[in-house]
Amino acid sequence: QTNVTIYGVADAAIGAGHSDDNDFRGVVGGVLSGNRIGFRGTEDLGNGLKAVFTLEQGFSIDNGTERINGLAFSRQAFVGLQGSFGTVSLGRQYAPGYFANYDAALSGLISPQSTLTSGAGLSITPNSAARWDNSIAYTGTFGGLTARAIYSAQTETEVALGENQNNDDRWGASLDYANGPFKAGVTYHFVKETGANNDARKELYVGAEYNFGVLTVAGSWQNARDFTNAAGILAGESDRDLRVWQLGVIVPVTAAGKVHVAYGKLQDRDLNDADAKNWAIAYTHALSKRTTAYAAYNKTQNDDNVAIGALNGTLVPAAGENAGMAVVGMRHTF
Amino acid sequence: QTNVTIYGVADAAIGAGHSDDNDFRGVVGGVLSGNRIGFRGTEDLGNGLKAVFTLEQGFSIDNGTERINGLAFSRQAFVGLQGSFGTVSLGRQYAPGYFANYDAALSGLISPQSTLTSGAGLSITPNSAARWDNSIAYTGTFGGLTARAIYSAQTETEVALGENQNNDDRWGASLDYANGPFKAGVTYHFVKETGANNDARKELYVGAEYNFGVLTVAGSWQNARDFTNAAGILAGESDRDLRVWQLGVIVPVTAAGKVHVAYGKLQDRDLNDADAKNWAIAYTHALSKRTTAYAAYNKTQNDDNVAIGALNGTLVPAAGENAGMAVVGMRHTF
Amino acid sequence: QTNVTIYGVADAAIGAGHSDDNDFRGVVGGVLSGNRIGFRGTEDLGNGLKAVFTLEQGFSIDNGTERINGLAFSRQAFVGLQGSFGTVSLGRQYAPGYFANYDAALSGLISPQSTLTSGAGLSITPNSAARWDNSIAYTGTFGGLTARAIYSAQTETEVALGENQNNDDRWGASLDYANGPFKAGVTYHFVKETGANNDARKELYVGAEYNFGVLTVAGSWQNARDFTNAAGILAGESDRDLRVWQLGVIVPVTAAGKVHVAYGKLQDRDLNDADAKNWAIAYTHALSKRTTAYAAYNKTQNDDNVAIGALNGTLVPAAGENAGMAVVGMRHTF
Repeated sequence: QTNVTIYGVADAAIGAGHSDDNDFRGVVGGVLSGNRIGFRGTEDLGNGLKAVFTLEQGFSIDNGTERINGLAFSRQAFVGLQGSFGTVSLGRQYAPGYFANYDAALSGLISPQSTLTSGAGLSITPNSAARWDNSIAYTGTFGGLTARAIYSAQTETEVALGENQNNDDRWGASLDYANGPFKAGVTYHFVKETGANNDARKELYVGAEYNFGVLTVAGSWQNARDFTNAAGILAGESDRDLRVWQLGVIVPVTAAGKVHVAYGKLQDRDLNDADAKNWAIAYTHALSKRTTAYAAYNKTQNDDNVAIGALNGTLVPAAGENAGMAVVGMRHTF
Repeated sequence: QTNVTIYGVADAAIGAGHSDDNDFRGVVGGVLSGNRIGFRGTEDLGNGLKAVFTLEQGFSIDNGTERINGLAFSRQAFVGLQGSFGTVSLGRQYAPGYFANYDAALSGLISPQSTLTSGAGLSITPNSAARWDNSIAYTGTFGGLTARAIYSAQTETEVALGENQNNDDRWGASLDYANGPFKAGVTYHFVKETGANNDARKELYVGAEYNFGVLTVAGSWQNARDFTNAAGILAGESDRDLRVWQLGVIVPVTAAGKVHVAYGKLQDRDLNDADAKNWAIAYTHALSKRTTAYAAYNKTQNDDNVAIGALNGTLVPAAGENAGMAVVGMRHTF
Repeated sequence: QTNVTIYGVADAAIGAGHSDDNDFRGVVGGVLSGNRIGFRGTEDLGNGLKAVFTLEQGFSIDNGTERINGLAFSRQAFVGLQGSFGTVSLGRQYAPGYFANYDAALSGLISPQSTLTSGAGLSITPNSAARWDNSIAYTGTFGGLTARAIYSAQTETEVALGENQNNDDRWGASLDYANGPFKAGVTYHFVKETGANNDARKELYVGAEYNFGVLTVAGSWQNARDFTNAAGILAGESDRDLRVWQLGVIVPVTAAGKVHVAYGKLQDRDLNDADAKNWAIAYTHALSKRTTAYAAYNKTQNDDNVAIGALNGTLVPAAGENAGMAVVGMRHTF
């Protein structure tokens, strides 16, 4: 037992939403952080070397389902070696884009960046699209600098015919810098897309955050070029270019309470009437270091050819319609 | 690790059963208590307030399957706040009917009440029909009085058209009283049923138990009115009225051993030849506080239009036939 | 928490393989030991008696999937009683054939015996075919002697028509002896096969190992008679006789490093051109008692009518073609 630490998140809220066609009333899970339970451990091997492992399952607290059907550990499953050089690990792992979190809306469901990137199918996103199978990953922190890299053979491409064996291979890298009140980072993903032409999508992200004391400002800009297989919510030609940017502030209003405001925009550079805007406001109140109560509102405005949902897809409207969701809940970490 | 407690039940038996058409020989899981493994924790937030969470998976010990396919936590998944006022929680949770346990047969698979209500599809039952998704629940205990309430948006009704959004919403409430040798309680469930007419089923349960020392007597009566979507084992018209009652005794025969006898009846008030009788006898022997050995027999007699199985559906006969099951096993709680 | 111990294996490698038609590049899980996480406990009941339980899930570390879809505990799920007589348990359990491990290649994916038996569908194998549902099992160790027995009603045969209810019942038994540098054992499985004629397959295994100090020699011979339902990779008539034998050595080369070499052969005694050969070489290096780094190569040569994969099916070639796989990785046990 001493070898394993159990940890996780239990986050649930009451939600009410509205779009032109649909209403939502029910329980929403994972508004601030995705629901998860994990098992991890570290063994000291001597000479500054450690063996590390993490097995982490995502689940829906509203109905108990596995976050991805058939997966025992949908969020992370890896084993690796850690030393002064950093950590090298093998398994199902986060791509660097998962950590691209210069976001006043906490990269949660309420975040415009999370909502817009997840809706458009980008992989630089704090969502499942940034969890890559069959991957080798590296993370190293040196002073204020953190470097990340990953190479993934991804699913179902391991066994294939002749020269196409790397059909959907992908890699990513990021560099993040933190110094006192200032943080900034850049992330790049290169994702081969399956299909006839076997093109590769290229994603770039830059973000920064500055804590002025009275408030914290955070923002990011990212694009995806040659995007053939969109997530399905955007119609249109292949090899499209998408852009997502967002800007927000965190304002501490009491010792335990903060107000978060963020605005983001998704732009399709190739298709007309295919932009979407999303904004969010939230109040978070720390009941303890591990438990936070919150209230939040998230709204999406879609152009005619887009159907991005509110609150990271919790309520998806018809194309061209708007959607808004309000939630009140709590996140408990353990 | 200190934040999480692991707990559960491992209960398995050898079973042999017979109906006119089918025989059963194999391993039966969860005769006294459903097999489960859970993770729960409590954090003191100060001012008498606590954060609580529970994640509980059910499984079949005979073959290792998830109790409900695709669910990581099929029994319970919730997070909530606890205080002197009680507990308020959000997630997949027990409806009050899960706790309607005035039952000499321990509300296990061997119980006539469990077998008949589960077979008929009632939701006031110690079975999965009393686990509700997307729910907010309340539990409070004040002296000998325990109050429970739940409201559930249930599955797949969260997003729907216009005014029908609450299609299958449901709520329930219960009040239980315990004072020395005497216990009694009343439970009510209101379950909107999906379908054309969108009717609502109403279920009522009353039960009581008295411990005379030399024996304990327990019994319950319950009905379900306007039952449109029956569990499929009862043919017939919609809006039916069902009744289930049962009566039993527990007789301590040694310091560690008890004999349990119970008899129950399911009555369909609208359909002829659609009643079923179930009776059970069991001997339980406590090997420790946590481990119990047992032997039991459960038998169902079905009218021509009913096909209730023995031992809570472990062996289901053809309509109108009888079925009986004997088991010998042990339950270990951890 | 004191009642439950969490344990497991996290084993991942980078793999590269080649057959005439297919290439493989990616992450391979469980090369030395299958990936798993388990929960087990023991309760002292007094009088030398203990209650024991084990719940063990297998998973794929390369993509996080459940080892067998829909199973919460695909490897083991049982509860039982332990005493000086041994252990009697009920649930989903290992058949004796799972422990038939006189194998210089550690019974891992790299093992010729594991690769050939798994590919041919034998049940005396360190793979899932030796995990039996609905079973009662016995294990007892008396000095250097270990006896195992199991009876399984297996899946979906519990409820069946009349006299055929035991359609796919199966049983097994083994006796293993260990004395200083010498170990030897014999295992027998009797597996009723579903289908028209309802035949029974009989499997026999004998194995031995001797540690000469400078090297350890291990080998085994096994057969399967009246094998109607082959695993699908071998075409041909029913009631076939198969044989698998293997021989290998372990050579300690440093305090922490060992070289493992093994060669095995599968022979179909009824079908022409249906033999397969498999050989393996591995270097294992103990980084600690719990963590081992390794490099290994496994190769299969198939006759025209066989398509056994390399590395226990990680890379399956077309019938009659060869396949080879190299891996470099680490196993961490917790």
